Amino acid sequence: MAATPASASVETPDLDPAFALHRGGKIEIRSTVPVRDADDLSLAYTPGVARVCTAIADKPALADDYTWVSNVVAVVSDGTAVLGLGDIGPSAAMPVMEGKALLFKEFAGVDAVPICLDCTDVDGLVETVVRLAPSFGGINLEDISAPRCFEIENRLRDLLDIPVFHDDQHGTAIVALAALKNAARLTGRELGDLRAVVAGAGASGVAVTRILLEAGIGDIAVSDSKGMIYEGREGLNPVKQALARDTNRGGHTGSTEEALEGADLFLGLSGSTVSEQAIASMSPDGIVFALSNPTPEVHPDVAAKHVKVVATGRSDFPNQINNVLAFPGVFRGALDVRATAITENMKVAAANALAGVVGDDLTATYIIPSPFDERVAPAVTAAVAAQARADGVARV
Amino acid sequence: MAATPASASVETPDLDPAFALHRGGKIEIRSTVPVRDADDLSLAYTPGVARVCTAIADKPALADDYTWVSNVVAVVSDGTAVLGLGDIGPSAAMPVMEGKALLFKEFAGVDAVPICLDCTDVDGLVETVVRLAPSFGGINLEDISAPRCFEIENRLRDLLDIPVFHDDQHGTAIVALAALKNAARLTGRELGDLRAVVAGAGASGVAVTRILLEAGIGDIAVSDSKGMIYEGREGLNPVKQALARDTNRGGHTGSTEEALEGADLFLGLSGSTVSEQAIASMSPDGIVFALSNPTPEVHPDVAAKHVKVVATGRSDFPNQINNVLAFPGVFRGALDVRATAITENMKVAAANALAGVVGDDLTATYIIPSPFDERVAPAVTAAVAAQARADGVARV
Repeated sequence: MAATPASASVETPDLDPAFALHRGGKIEIRSTVPVRDADDLSLAYTPGVARVCTAIADKPALADDYTWVSNVVAVVSDGTAVLGLGDIGPSAAMPVMEGKALLFKEFAGVDAVPICLDCTDVDGLVETVVRLAPSFGGINLEDISAPRCFEIENRLRDLLDIPVFHDDQHGTAIVALAALKNAARLTGRELGDLRAVVAGAGASGVAVTRILLEAGIGDIAVSDSKGMIYEGREGLNPVKQALARDTNRGGHTGSTEEALEGADLFLGLSGSTVSEQAIASMSPDGIVFALSNPTPEVHPDVAAKHVKVVATGRSDFPNQINNVLAFPGVFRGALDVRATAITENMKVAAANALAGVVGDDLTATYIIPSPFDERVAPAVTAAVAAQARADGVARV
Repeated sequence: MAATPASASVETPDLDPAFALHRGGKIEIRSTVPVRDADDLSLAYTPGVARVCTAIADKPALADDYTWVSNVVAVVSDGTAVLGLGDIGPSAAMPVMEGKALLFKEFAGVDAVPICLDCTDVDGLVETVVRLAPSFGGINLEDISAPRCFEIENRLRDLLDIPVFHDDQHGTAIVALAALKNAARLTGRELGDLRAVVAGAGASGVAVTRILLEAGIGDIAVSDSKGMIYEGREGLNPVKQALARDTNRGGHTGSTEEALEGADLFLGLSGSTVSEQAIASMSPDGIVFALSNPTPEVHPDVAAKHVKVVATGRSDFPNQINNVLAFPGVFRGALDVRATAITENMKVAAANALAGVVGDDLTATYIIPSPFDERVAPAVTAAVAAQARADGVARV
């Protein structure tokens, strides 16, 4: 990788196709109206624009129709938990947020603006996003470290009447739930039949655990870097204390690997590894989602020797759990009905729609569609919009 | 219009072509790189994007080359002084900021993002823009009421190492100075020969006065809604106190109209009116810039009966003083050399370049080019970039 020695990375970065592609950035602003002459200018800008401003001042809902706001999502990060890179700061996070904006547009026609903030305290981040809110139809939080991300999202959801969605949590949770539903169907089980071990109690680990609990998983236990999370373990933060209360009916207190013995599902979102021996100790027809990127918790070929279904976060193996399957359609659906929030039901509806795309083609190496399956975004969009109406959070 | 059938303005707004044009907004995000397949995705997003992020974390200046940041300006407003409409709030200000973004792109290829903030206190606005700064190559402040706008801009200029430019002040000042240089040339005078009266001590009145002082105007006196501003007048805010010290050598203490007797230049930025009689009392070869919009301080046809040169802010009369002649090229030039600031010299260089476009075609009805003259933005861009280098604020 050219990046590490700074001089080398600067001399020849464009030999790396990723750098070549990134030169000048990945997105731009384009006008959607003509500005050819003074007449055009007098409509798009002064004096014509004043009539539109006055109408919105009189009736704020008109902003939905006569500005771009209702189609624009802010992709907001503080750069503290970027991909597997950690706290690299707002400027270095920008390529990821720009990439997200690119995907929003390409997969669902959502305009998205990357906003990397020079601010890491919770109060400051919440306050800043609240101030920005009139300019956006939705807020996609991204790559904000745990446990700060939980409080930031919760407070913003309370304060704002537009959708707020931390994709590292809920995007991952939606896609994982969709894949798991299909894996369970493939192996002839209900979610309620499954005993699961989740490695990782960061943003995605917590959110996946929560959505699986809501979806009725049989039993689930969660570990962090210090081992299994259980009631009474010392030094748990409030989020993990709540997890301890709601999980681990089996009372596991040791390592992730010990808990895996006889488990039906291993779900890795940890950045750590588990041994082949531990995977081999799982129940028959086991399911392994080794989602750490770029290095899964267990190599998928190794896992496949011992379990029935394997998924990863990588595009070079079958069954990629990729957030791009969820967030474009989730926001498209929410924006289409001017939803005031993204409810838990809307997330589950998105997962069901995504799982449904696989349909009768279900196999052990096809439990989740490809990101390039053109049925995905419309299916998720329709399900999310319908559920928003059912939940009473749609404004149109 | 299905969404909001409620008031007269809502029933048939699309009969107004300004509303028809604004439907759905005036700008969009577009991708500049392909996302056709998994290979594209692996370069534009994970895993390839991680190498770009790492490189920027190691060497922050690489963000200029490998993100869109160095070409993006935030058009920031709090909606407190929108056009002639006043304090209509952030949502109702959005069509103006979107329009500005449209013009940035159309006239100079600058990507601009409209940011309307739900925050009106000076500390909060400054803090918010500082937090946003990693995402932008420049900050265009817009439609923020005086005198708050002066402190906000000054503090941001001190705190940030990217260009900060309050267009209502400096855009107007640049274009007015350019037009005035040509008007003086037409009438065979130097700026130092002119005695001027400026009506209006808001953002643009103050900035125009300041740039004229720097350009060596002979004498200048400024009025606000209470009459002429002079040292010792009660109740002046600090900005007007400073103006009082630096202007009004003639010691005018009465009305704008009284001060106009024998003056060479009237510059209206006030929203008020002056009588035909007062215009008639100006010196021979007088110059009137009646820039209030949509209603000039004096009708241009009336003024033209008594003075040699008349300019307005309107496109339906000759000599339109339009900020779009300045801000696109000013930012294009500043971004092209990664300027850390926009200096006073850069503003004067922009004015000189703009005046120069008129060249030998100068007449009383052609003292400033049309916004659609394709020579304008390149001329301003080149002058601003060269002056940034001369002033030592260019980074490349």
